[in-house]
Amino acid sequence: MATVPLKDELDIVIPTIRNLDFLEMWRPFFEQYHLIIVQDGDPSKTIKVPDGFDYELYNRNDINKILGPRASCISFKDSACRCFGYMVSKKKYIFTIDDDCFVAKDPSGKDINALQQHIKNLLCPSTPYFFNTLYDPFRDGADFVRGYPFSLREGVSTAVSHGLWLNIPDYDAPTQLVKPLERNTRYVDTVLAIPKGTLFPMCGMNLAFDRDLIGPAMYFGLMGDGQPIGRYDDMWAGWCCKVICDHLGLGIKTGLPYIYHSKASNPFVNLKKEYNGIFWQEEIIPFFQQMNLSKESTTVQKCYVEMAKQVNEKLGKIDPYFVKLADAMVTWIEAWDELNPPTKDSAKATNAASK
Amino acid sequence: MATVPLKDELDIVIPTIRNLDFLEMWRPFFEQYHLIIVQDGDPSKTIKVPDGFDYELYNRNDINKILGPRASCISFKDSACRCFGYMVSKKKYIFTIDDDCFVAKDPSGKDINALQQHIKNLLCPSTPYFFNTLYDPFRDGADFVRGYPFSLREGVSTAVSHGLWLNIPDYDAPTQLVKPLERNTRYVDTVLAIPKGTLFPMCGMNLAFDRDLIGPAMYFGLMGDGQPIGRYDDMWAGWCCKVICDHLGLGIKTGLPYIYHSKASNPFVNLKKEYNGIFWQEEIIPFFQQMNLSKESTTVQKCYVEMAKQVNEKLGKIDPYFVKLADAMVTWIEAWDELNPPTKDSAKATNAASK
Repeated sequence: MATVPLKDELDIVIPTIRNLDFLEMWRPFFEQYHLIIVQDGDPSKTIKVPDGFDYELYNRNDINKILGPRASCISFKDSACRCFGYMVSKKKYIFTIDDDCFVAKDPSGKDINALQQHIKNLLCPSTPYFFNTLYDPFRDGADFVRGYPFSLREGVSTAVSHGLWLNIPDYDAPTQLVKPLERNTRYVDTVLAIPKGTLFPMCGMNLAFDRDLIGPAMYFGLMGDGQPIGRYDDMWAGWCCKVICDHLGLGIKTGLPYIYHSKASNPFVNLKKEYNGIFWQEEIIPFFQQMNLSKESTTVQKCYVEMAKQVNEKLGKIDPYFVKLADAMVTWIEAWDELNPPTKDSAKATNAASK
Repeated sequence: MATVPLKDELDIVIPTIRNLDFLEMWRPFFEQYHLIIVQDGDPSKTIKVPDGFDYELYNRNDINKILGPRASCISFKDSACRCFGYMVSKKKYIFTIDDDCFVAKDPSGKDINALQQHIKNLLCPSTPYFFNTLYDPFRDGADFVRGYPFSLREGVSTAVSHGLWLNIPDYDAPTQLVKPLERNTRYVDTVLAIPKGTLFPMCGMNLAFDRDLIGPAMYFGLMGDGQPIGRYDDMWAGWCCKVICDHLGLGIKTGLPYIYHSKASNPFVNLKKEYNGIFWQEEIIPFFQQMNLSKESTTVQKCYVEMAKQVNEKLGKIDPYFVKLADAMVTWIEAWDELNPPTKDSAKATNAASK
């Protein structure tokens, strides 16, 4: 069965590190891996990383130097900048986590190795074409139930593993304001494939994915400094990834592993960042629900560029921001391809995925 | 919040009772309700019901007397006959359970009141149009997460609540044969709406539904004596119900409550019953996945009759059995309407549901 991959197969991407406790707590699980830290704020400030960690750190000056004019597609002063780390990594798997997320405990009181569970999720197939009532059929002690078509039991490759949060739930500002004391204490012991055709709100706090399969679609958009919207970076990536996974026959799982989300961000600040998104998502979600990608879009890159065109044409009518975003999506793909020139292997993987 | 309904709102339908322990174990939870027992075998045999239960019992002779020639739509010598109980009930809610299903315990060791959880599921809305990563947003301590469109938070009425099984999982004969010792010990503490457009294998062992909303689609088909197929009664009902719920804007939930499934049925006998279904489902499921119901089908009955026509036309090519089944589907609706003449209230409910 699935095991934690070797160091040369996975990078951990962290948008910033505001406290040293974060890495100390994760030390037993992270120390053997390479970290990519993408500093989301003022490049003149120094991020301290405790001894013993193998890491590379990029601030805004580095991003500008590496990408040149294409650096415009990377958000500034917003954790959305983390996607630069996805681009510069050379590994097959990425695990990304926020610095206010700590090690959670399972109901028996044992520390949860989130990374290990994500890798299990990614290495097991997904079954997005029919719902299995006992959830992930590939877990120990589970299987496909009576009535599950045998032709669908092979499943498809899993591209994304979306983990959850104990303690502070990932609520929007209005819900935070209405329910300031709500805590998530329910450990739901399951992983499931999100069915084909169904969108979901992908949270970037505790997320892993297969770069070879879906990396170029994991763009976190234009958020933060100079943009009319924040806190929709991961949502944007989630909508795009889900539509592309459905089109290319790839799977997305959600559920385990849990992390412990230690503190709620300020709901008043969040409301300011979110309010445009709260309006716009009412049109964006039907747009993605109804999106059709052409048969010619057989790679993630081709899908993404086709998607950018539709964003420009259809969402551009909502606000000029989406025209700028559509341009940035294309720039992102150009930058991705520049830093990740296609190899024979990756071309093969993409072809297999698109079958 | 949701409470257990009064006696005059719910009936418990049981296909047969082969042992007295079954009702004794459920006595604290069932005694206040009315039972409808539909005897699935030889009508000359007597089913014993312990003292203190309020029940009505129908055997084959009763079914023939009540339905006349239309009794042909009710299966004989198969637990699929239970759907006759749905038809003769006059209550809003039905809970149906098999006689080898006992009271399960939650992780704290407390007896699970399955009926109460089903009613909670049915009284809370479903959210089939977008996936909520914290599962049922209406449970205590949960809500909609960031990025869930506000316009979809009202949800839709829940028509079906599908419960699960600890101990013996509901596997098909091949899986039973391959994994004779597998037991389900994982208590997954969740309920979720099955997304629109996604089919699922509905098991009749531990199932509740709102008769007013979906009753006429809860037909368990032609199984058992004289039929080329068995163990697909609940699956058939599940496919039909899901497509109709999606069309009419109703929800189906799965997950809690668990019952304890005490013994596995004989896999060799099951294989004999299932083998046609195992072949046929490979064509039946795409048929249901691609089914479109017309705008004119605004009630469950109209949907079901339209569906019967498509079954005849498209599945009739697989085997003459489906032509017979399509006829039986129409007969079932005629019988349902005869025993349940539309009232002003039910017409209103159906119109509301179809909006």
